[in-house]
Amino acid sequence: MKTNEFVPQIPYGTRDFLPREAKYKRIVEGSLAGLFAKWGYDEVVTPTFEYLETLSAGSDEQMAQNMFKFFDKKNHILALRPDMTTPIARVASTRLKENSLPLRLFYLTNVFRYEQAQAGRQCEFYQAGVELLGVPGPAADAEVIALAVQAMKDSGLQTFQVNIGQVEFINGIMEESRLTAEQRQKVKQCMVNRNVVGLGEILTASGLSSDVQTLLRQIPLLYGKEELLEQAYAMVTNPVSRAALDNLADIYCLLKGYGVEQYVNFDLGIIRDFEYYTGMVFEGYTPGLGFPLCGGGRYDKMVSSFGVDCPSTGFALGIERVLLALERQGISLDADFREWYVGWEPGKLTEAIQKASELRMQGQSVELALFPQSRQEAAMSQKAKGCKELIYI
Amino acid sequence: MKTNEFVPQIPYGTRDFLPREAKYKRIVEGSLAGLFAKWGYDEVVTPTFEYLETLSAGSDEQMAQNMFKFFDKKNHILALRPDMTTPIARVASTRLKENSLPLRLFYLTNVFRYEQAQAGRQCEFYQAGVELLGVPGPAADAEVIALAVQAMKDSGLQTFQVNIGQVEFINGIMEESRLTAEQRQKVKQCMVNRNVVGLGEILTASGLSSDVQTLLRQIPLLYGKEELLEQAYAMVTNPVSRAALDNLADIYCLLKGYGVEQYVNFDLGIIRDFEYYTGMVFEGYTPGLGFPLCGGGRYDKMVSSFGVDCPSTGFALGIERVLLALERQGISLDADFREWYVGWEPGKLTEAIQKASELRMQGQSVELALFPQSRQEAAMSQKAKGCKELIYI
Repeated sequence: MKTNEFVPQIPYGTRDFLPREAKYKRIVEGSLAGLFAKWGYDEVVTPTFEYLETLSAGSDEQMAQNMFKFFDKKNHILALRPDMTTPIARVASTRLKENSLPLRLFYLTNVFRYEQAQAGRQCEFYQAGVELLGVPGPAADAEVIALAVQAMKDSGLQTFQVNIGQVEFINGIMEESRLTAEQRQKVKQCMVNRNVVGLGEILTASGLSSDVQTLLRQIPLLYGKEELLEQAYAMVTNPVSRAALDNLADIYCLLKGYGVEQYVNFDLGIIRDFEYYTGMVFEGYTPGLGFPLCGGGRYDKMVSSFGVDCPSTGFALGIERVLLALERQGISLDADFREWYVGWEPGKLTEAIQKASELRMQGQSVELALFPQSRQEAAMSQKAKGCKELIYI
Repeated sequence: MKTNEFVPQIPYGTRDFLPREAKYKRIVEGSLAGLFAKWGYDEVVTPTFEYLETLSAGSDEQMAQNMFKFFDKKNHILALRPDMTTPIARVASTRLKENSLPLRLFYLTNVFRYEQAQAGRQCEFYQAGVELLGVPGPAADAEVIALAVQAMKDSGLQTFQVNIGQVEFINGIMEESRLTAEQRQKVKQCMVNRNVVGLGEILTASGLSSDVQTLLRQIPLLYGKEELLEQAYAMVTNPVSRAALDNLADIYCLLKGYGVEQYVNFDLGIIRDFEYYTGMVFEGYTPGLGFPLCGGGRYDKMVSSFGVDCPSTGFALGIERVLLALERQGISLDADFREWYVGWEPGKLTEAIQKASELRMQGQSVELALFPQSRQEAAMSQKAKGCKELIYI
């Protein structure tokens, strides 16, 4: 190719997936789609953009601020979807509202957030996720956690863990301690950001009793295996927090049934999005990534934005994060390389076409030369194209 | 579910794919991705939006007008991609420019055009397509036509055909006849729209010799099997048109090598986008759809918008159109229904989880009840969920 100087750029926060990356993406997405179907989940595909009003119904203020917005020709405000939970809730509460509950839905698509790009998270990024709609209780929560574990496994990862929290544990303590609404916001913000120093400062200035301060300071440290629940029971007496721990104990018991308890830790400092989740919350981690691969939890109020009362639980997995983790951990997927290169001497194209067709009929992948070559040239092309075998006609 | 009156709408020209449609979409897309790989094509995934300037480089004026446009925070104009050919050309001429030619690339994604929605074509729609970059000549053109035939077959369609034209055939006649630039535009526009009456009016008013008028009037009628080429040869003497027919004859000969000649007709009235294509053009049709399922051709100039000289050929297939054709033709794909429903009596959830896990390990799909049921209730759920078999624990 002959090139000149004009090199077109792509917008901030976007990326191309070149052949090798695109192939890994397709392999991972294909595994996940197969997995979700095996667990009884049905795919739903929704529009890339919707009315801002619809998407805002399920979003907090910051997410609404960070949407890519534009106008249609009738001056309605449209926005690129910042997540799939709201569109899934819209579909569930309208077009699927006659279906029998629970509804198990999955998606595998791109979402858009106009915020600072970071490793594994651009402004456009791909998510695989499930939503289990219409059922309260630990059986549903355990199912989505176990499915998240299996999703990380089926993505090709070998080492990972899931940390589980329960937002009601913290809510119970804050209610009992009579924090003002403003104090609660600040405390939760520090916990979301894992800002232990900031948390200390807020508590020192809070005028709360030293018992309560000590309790709140400990929350981000409440991390561990099964025995952590005992430790947490000993710390709280309020019924809301204790019910949260009972819920986690029930979920854990079912996770043992799924045989995934070795991947599970408790982390009572997990809050995630503090407006959104109403019960169990969890995050999946893998070595070498400083941010979660996947996350989710129970959100019993969001779907009711569309006028339907519907306890729900689910998770989303970041596809680029999975690909990044696989790369950093040196794991290669079976990306079936091309099998044959078919080269031909002048006058033999039709014969070469017939040979290529025959091999493809047998399920083999074939790259066919498009101009005559000598045997040596064909052998060089075979290598350049990464084909395993050469046929020369 | 308890519902109230608020029913969120989705924007004009968008749609949801509910579970059955989404499953068919995934099956068709999976087959196509596998097919393209088998023919030596690599997938590329590009951003959903790019700079308007980049996307405009490969688009005609009408397409540029019909893009969804918006601003980033630095007031650059972004647009949702109206097709994938321009992004693929961008990638080929920048990040893949060191790769050895030919480059065989495919895509399977959504594109966006703000125009009137129609059956099988919304403002957001899905395309599968290939681009074969870097090679002139009939071998490349025959490969993409044969691949388009195989793509329609692998999509599940049984009855379809491909109509092939050559834009240089018409160009040769118009050059020879010394039509003004304006007359050419009008004549081509009539041919693109298959507007025979309009064409007649333009020609009558043109002042062209009656021989030329007769010739141009006949072009839209030049439709048939192999013998049509003989008929067309007899009509023209100018070297450009004759070279176009030679090119079609060469391509047809190779298509016989691929064993797909029974699907092929010639239609010398096909122009498609008249700024864009520079040689062979083709469209795929299936009974019951009044518009092409797929279309493509040779475009030797477009990629040079990015400063790289690169003869190219390719096609795109409309996924929604395939799904619509399958539906209208009553063809159902093997959409593997759920195998098992696992119900359980109170206290047996853990056992049920273990049974479900065991079946999934064996590759079976399982829907697990999330609350205790009687055997009768479980049987009703099994039916409601469309599971083949019931296990009750």
